[in-house]
Amino acid sequence: MTSGTIYGVGLGPGDPDLMSVRADRLLRNARHVAYFRKAGHVGQARAIAGALLPAEATEFPMEYPVTTEIPLSDPRYNQLLSEFYASCTGHLRSLSLKGEDVVVLCEGDPFFYGSFMHLHSRLHGKVPISVVPAVTGMSGAWTATGTPITWGDDVLTVLMGTLPEDALVRHMRDTDALVVMKIGRNFDKVCRALARSGLADRAWLVERAAMPDQTITPLSDVRNQVAPYFSIILVHGQGRRP
Amino acid sequence: MTSGTIYGVGLGPGDPDLMSVRADRLLRNARHVAYFRKAGHVGQARAIAGALLPAEATEFPMEYPVTTEIPLSDPRYNQLLSEFYASCTGHLRSLSLKGEDVVVLCEGDPFFYGSFMHLHSRLHGKVPISVVPAVTGMSGAWTATGTPITWGDDVLTVLMGTLPEDALVRHMRDTDALVVMKIGRNFDKVCRALARSGLADRAWLVERAAMPDQTITPLSDVRNQVAPYFSIILVHGQGRRP
Repeated sequence: MTSGTIYGVGLGPGDPDLMSVRADRLLRNARHVAYFRKAGHVGQARAIAGALLPAEATEFPMEYPVTTEIPLSDPRYNQLLSEFYASCTGHLRSLSLKGEDVVVLCEGDPFFYGSFMHLHSRLHGKVPISVVPAVTGMSGAWTATGTPITWGDDVLTVLMGTLPEDALVRHMRDTDALVVMKIGRNFDKVCRALARSGLADRAWLVERAAMPDQTITPLSDVRNQVAPYFSIILVHGQGRRP
Repeated sequence: MTSGTIYGVGLGPGDPDLMSVRADRLLRNARHVAYFRKAGHVGQARAIAGALLPAEATEFPMEYPVTTEIPLSDPRYNQLLSEFYASCTGHLRSLSLKGEDVVVLCEGDPFFYGSFMHLHSRLHGKVPISVVPAVTGMSGAWTATGTPITWGDDVLTVLMGTLPEDALVRHMRDTDALVVMKIGRNFDKVCRALARSGLADRAWLVERAAMPDQTITPLSDVRNQVAPYFSIILVHGQGRRP
């Protein structure tokens, strides 16, 4: 029997209309669907897929055993996640060996800071895998601002808010255009780093890009100091333009 | 009369199946279609759109008056391009004022190093504009390598091969993951910069990503020293992974 394929399907930034034609087709024809989520939540990926999935599809929610309850530096964090990914992988592999295709729903683009990579690295070479790239969350964010992110020779740097403040500042000082992701509880630190690097006045906070309730705010106008984890900060490049 | 909308429609990296559902629908229903191309060529954007466009759509190819014949530093370059963009913009604006929607075909993602930005900056605030984000060429490239580009806290830097060698080296030495675009005649310089920054052994050259004839080659195996302008060099991040 031929093994089934595990599809890592990027869903894009949030609007189902921005999903690729291939992703749309795979979702509408799915028999088995898997997705990560926080326990007790619908899950962002499942929410984006919405009503595209057939009612008769079998769903396999993969619930993180831990998200922010244990610090990343704690050895238990890595151990718990490692066991979790091994367990998810085992189930996907058993479906594949039965000849079943599985669609794994991925927010954004699967190979760009995605969770799917942790399944991919464990399944690679053992079962057929196919990755469907997608519009990144950051593309959704800069499109929402109505302003191009990069021109001409602009250097673009993508930083995670989880980095130490001094590392953020060093990279921010040596770039033309900037994207900062994983903001959440790192918001104050990221704002300090932007101020130290002279970029605070040009920075925008985009929340829930490409979703019906998206907001686009100059960072200097942000009063609420709790930004959602999936918000993105942007500084647009100002490069060459004839 | 209501003005028509100018749609800047990202087509993604090359495979029409990776176009968004929205882009696919806009193309199939287009009455007016515009796209950039080099004189005497079909144009990459027009080629990707292929047979999706209705036969009765009116096409408006916008042919660059100059590409690499004049150096970027020559004042005539900016003047010629500026006149060219003004002329294209005039035509699009006149269609909009007649109530006609126009689909402008854009390779990759329109607001990420795209040519559409030069029309957008001139039309913004004068006629209705709508930008449809897309899978970037770089997402197409890293998906083609079968390896995630970034993990955990990895810093990603995007560089244009047109930058001076020393600037390339400085940025390459201070990043975890790397994308270099606009290779073409900058190939030798980019390779020297990668060697000086210790990244040459981890670099991949991806040509025509997401197209039927795509190639993925370790940079150290590249013998042909003429890489296409639209090829992309990648160095994958190796960050945290439970």
